Amino acid sequence: MLVTEVTANGAARHPDELVEEEPMSIQLDGTLVSTTMRTPGHDFELAVGFCLTEGLLAGFAVTGVRYCATGSAVNTEFNVVTVDTGGRAPTATPRLGTTSSSCGWCGSDQIDELCSRLDPLPPSPPMALSLLGKVPELLHGRQPLFERTGAVHAAASFDRDGTLGVIREDVGRHNAVDKVIGAMVLSGELPASGLGLFVSGRASLEMVQKAWAAGFSTLVSVSAPTALAVDTARRANLVLAGFVRPGRFNLYSPERLVASAS
Amino acid sequence: MLVTEVTANGAARHPDELVEEEPMSIQLDGTLVSTTMRTPGHDFELAVGFCLTEGLLAGFAVTGVRYCATGSAVNTEFNVVTVDTGGRAPTATPRLGTTSSSCGWCGSDQIDELCSRLDPLPPSPPMALSLLGKVPELLHGRQPLFERTGAVHAAASFDRDGTLGVIREDVGRHNAVDKVIGAMVLSGELPASGLGLFVSGRASLEMVQKAWAAGFSTLVSVSAPTALAVDTARRANLVLAGFVRPGRFNLYSPERLVASAS
Repeated sequence: MLVTEVTANGAARHPDELVEEEPMSIQLDGTLVSTTMRTPGHDFELAVGFCLTEGLLAGFAVTGVRYCATGSAVNTEFNVVTVDTGGRAPTATPRLGTTSSSCGWCGSDQIDELCSRLDPLPPSPPMALSLLGKVPELLHGRQPLFERTGAVHAAASFDRDGTLGVIREDVGRHNAVDKVIGAMVLSGELPASGLGLFVSGRASLEMVQKAWAAGFSTLVSVSAPTALAVDTARRANLVLAGFVRPGRFNLYSPERLVASAS
Repeated sequence: MLVTEVTANGAARHPDELVEEEPMSIQLDGTLVSTTMRTPGHDFELAVGFCLTEGLLAGFAVTGVRYCATGSAVNTEFNVVTVDTGGRAPTATPRLGTTSSSCGWCGSDQIDELCSRLDPLPPSPPMALSLLGKVPELLHGRQPLFERTGAVHAAASFDRDGTLGVIREDVGRHNAVDKVIGAMVLSGELPASGLGLFVSGRASLEMVQKAWAAGFSTLVSVSAPTALAVDTARRANLVLAGFVRPGRFNLYSPERLVASAS
């Protein structure tokens, strides 16, 4: 696409690559559970990762993933993906409906709900603090879509040696994380015990929830966490580092590590 | 909250303010239409803005906004807001369900759906291009939550003289926009003909949709638009500027302005 760049010296047209964004519906055993705006690609990973990180699989194995086959082949736009568990996963409730019966639902209730279905992460030797501050640098040159468009988020798994595992990019930061985790589900790499998850955006509650559900030991964010995210990470026993910049970062969780590091 | 800052020189604890994030459910005439993670504050504006920008009001006036009153007063956490139209708005369908019957739903279908309920914006004299590049500077010192936490998005309305109108901050960029627009609904300032909307994040389809629904003539984003956002802005006749940096920006829409500026 041609765009016009405007500067104090005038305006000039030049080609510009824009990131793609398309809606994708996710079905679990044929029931719609979510519609998300995502960057097309790695769609099966996204669908599987979403079902796992939202707790919809309830521990049951994925037996298949496929594009929706109910429309005619001509009309299928590859924007509907069905995850199958052979009907074993509990009947899915759309996320929107989960809070409909509660008037006083709040962040504390959300943490309690997570704690009721996810055990605290098992203790694992913490990664070297010096590594956590370097994770963003590991991604340099590994985010091709960002380098072309400047408009996508990235997520990546990494180990204690600083080796990157799965790297995914998407217009939505939640989607990038779900794609990483979905890839690990499909390759049998979960739980991600002892591994770290990097996210290019903020560490909101949902980022912590997704890292926890996949069993990551560490979450590294280039930006700030929310208060609720920190509370949740502490309940999960998840190492949480944020505001990672060259030469510095903040450590928010777990409490004993925050206290002992200073 | 005390956090530990880790640098090459060691670690030190210091107080850190974290942005708050709490779930809020939005009801329209008593029917749940959305649950969003938001920064508490300006909740009525958020609820009203969401209902308007998602097309749920269908042109009907808001007759009241209130916190949910079905729970006991003691348990009400002020996390459920009901927007009333006296039952005149069409029975709301949760957003999640809008695509359930379609297998081939894609971005083009979304644009067609928007065009079926929103008329192209009326022509208005374009703002000076020199102003568009300066909008982020207008916000300097006007984002107190960002200055304290570094972790929130901002949205603001502005006029052709460069005067800011409503400014709102939120952990969610969609919420910040809905709060600005909701404030303008409640003060009778819509449609926002001739006005501009600033967003601190990317210009995705939903940002363009919300600006269009409120009648803004111009949308300024500090980051990139998606391809779908540009297509939609061109259909809407919305001026779209992105990647606004000191001294430069890109102009993406409308096509005649992009062509004539170069």
